[in-house]
Amino acid sequence: MTLPTLGLVGLGKIARDQHIPAIAATGLFKLAAVVSPDGATAEGVPSFRSQADMLAALPGLDAVALCTPPAVRHGLTVEALRAGKHVLIEKPPAATLSELHDLAAEAETARRTLFTAWHSQFNPAVEETRRRLANADIRSVAITWKEDVRRWHPGQDWIFAAGGFGVFDPGINALSILTDILPAPVFVRAADLHVPANRDTPIAATLEMGAAPGSRIGRITADFDFLQQGEQTWSIVIHTADGRLDLTHGGTRLFADGVPVLAEPDTEYQRIYRHFHRLVTDGASDVDGRPLSLVADACMVGRWHRTDSFDW
Amino acid sequence: MTLPTLGLVGLGKIARDQHIPAIAATGLFKLAAVVSPDGATAEGVPSFRSQADMLAALPGLDAVALCTPPAVRHGLTVEALRAGKHVLIEKPPAATLSELHDLAAEAETARRTLFTAWHSQFNPAVEETRRRLANADIRSVAITWKEDVRRWHPGQDWIFAAGGFGVFDPGINALSILTDILPAPVFVRAADLHVPANRDTPIAATLEMGAAPGSRIGRITADFDFLQQGEQTWSIVIHTADGRLDLTHGGTRLFADGVPVLAEPDTEYQRIYRHFHRLVTDGASDVDGRPLSLVADACMVGRWHRTDSFDW
Repeated sequence: MTLPTLGLVGLGKIARDQHIPAIAATGLFKLAAVVSPDGATAEGVPSFRSQADMLAALPGLDAVALCTPPAVRHGLTVEALRAGKHVLIEKPPAATLSELHDLAAEAETARRTLFTAWHSQFNPAVEETRRRLANADIRSVAITWKEDVRRWHPGQDWIFAAGGFGVFDPGINALSILTDILPAPVFVRAADLHVPANRDTPIAATLEMGAAPGSRIGRITADFDFLQQGEQTWSIVIHTADGRLDLTHGGTRLFADGVPVLAEPDTEYQRIYRHFHRLVTDGASDVDGRPLSLVADACMVGRWHRTDSFDW
Repeated sequence: MTLPTLGLVGLGKIARDQHIPAIAATGLFKLAAVVSPDGATAEGVPSFRSQADMLAALPGLDAVALCTPPAVRHGLTVEALRAGKHVLIEKPPAATLSELHDLAAEAETARRTLFTAWHSQFNPAVEETRRRLANADIRSVAITWKEDVRRWHPGQDWIFAAGGFGVFDPGINALSILTDILPAPVFVRAADLHVPANRDTPIAATLEMGAAPGSRIGRITADFDFLQQGEQTWSIVIHTADGRLDLTHGGTRLFADGVPVLAEPDTEYQRIYRHFHRLVTDGASDVDGRPLSLVADACMVGRWHRTDSFDW
């Protein structure tokens, strides 16, 4: 059996650290080409300057995985779908919700798979948390997502340019877990967004959220910070009538009342490629707009504050 | 035949100027009650302090029309749908997109009609413009929506509070027309949002938009201003390969190359109640999230600027 072929578009940190190793480890797709506008290359496969060049050179390509900054994903996804390719999109899947709705419609018209890969959802600890919360009396959920942007996104100015998400770039991972583990829809009630004087996206944000009327879910808060020194924190603490759950390390470890329940090795991207392969095989799509909607909602109902300038 | 009964929730300017006269003029619903937390009344019908009081007192009520500020619409709509009522919601239908998606799901579960009444879409001139643009080569679309907030929303502080939409409160009417008349989806590419130093929502905004790749639609711009003195402007100018269309006066008048095509009397709310009645009769819903999505998108990708304080 021939493996479906895949082109990787965008050769940044996430592509090299996660996608290329996961594609190799799972063995479900054959990496056939990479695209880098800067002319970067990957071992053993041809490299193109644009997706259009790759699509023209390799007409038989089956799928593409998009690891570019979000601002250009809509155009590239439409181009790939219209060329008959299945598409996996890194998070966040588009710059705006209107774009994401359009991509879902384009995939349906093209009869191709579209997969919005919210990687944080692909951890066994997240799945186990969802199972434990399905019928729980949830008193509070507190997200703390604090990391050092200089360490994780060094020099990446696009993240602070308009449309670059700022601290929501990591924060949306927490929101993708939140919408995945809670048994009811979540809404942003209020938000405070702190934007450096010389930038256009938040470097810190706090959100007050709530669940649907009548659901047994209390206060939900999120605290996002991009200037965290020392220990980095990506945790969600949930208090239920039955005790406390700590989902830590970006959703990879779960503790119940302080006792470890699950601590899997970091295999989320392998799960992502297995899921993508299954979707392609089944002729299905998986488009989840909820995390992006919460960010847009926070920007719409939030209070914007100017804070100190940020430089690398 | 007995008319379906309707309760009007919120007795502000729009309820008195538009809803009550349109309900009377169309004769398709019987106004059975009004709700006003301030204890305001309307002639000939009982008045309640809360929707819950009204629902308890009039269990046979068929429908409600919500004319409250957007922040409380989600809770009231859920309450009404779960009580088995059909719901018409004034624009904007919810404070956030997550809320609107939830309302669509609630209406489906309750098997009741939900109608997001974007009133500007209900003008014959808007319909005629849509017809003329269906196969047109559209070179540019320029929205100019400039009004004096002191004249149209005197003292309404909620409009400048977080979640109050600011200049997007009128601007979303233009966006509801835009999404209705164009034959392809629209996306926000960039935005500049000007927020008074002592407020939380924009008092002016400009948007750069574009249509789907491959559509024959050029540059789309919007210029929203809440401090317009003198003549008030709510117009959309469209240049096509065949000439110029001017959709003016909030979508009520259409000119082709300067020649009047349509100038209907202001009957949009009568059309709204006829449409609501038809939806109820057909057991259908009409939920249009596109205008709200464009506002959320503009807030997410926009650059925020502080401008002079605003006081009434």
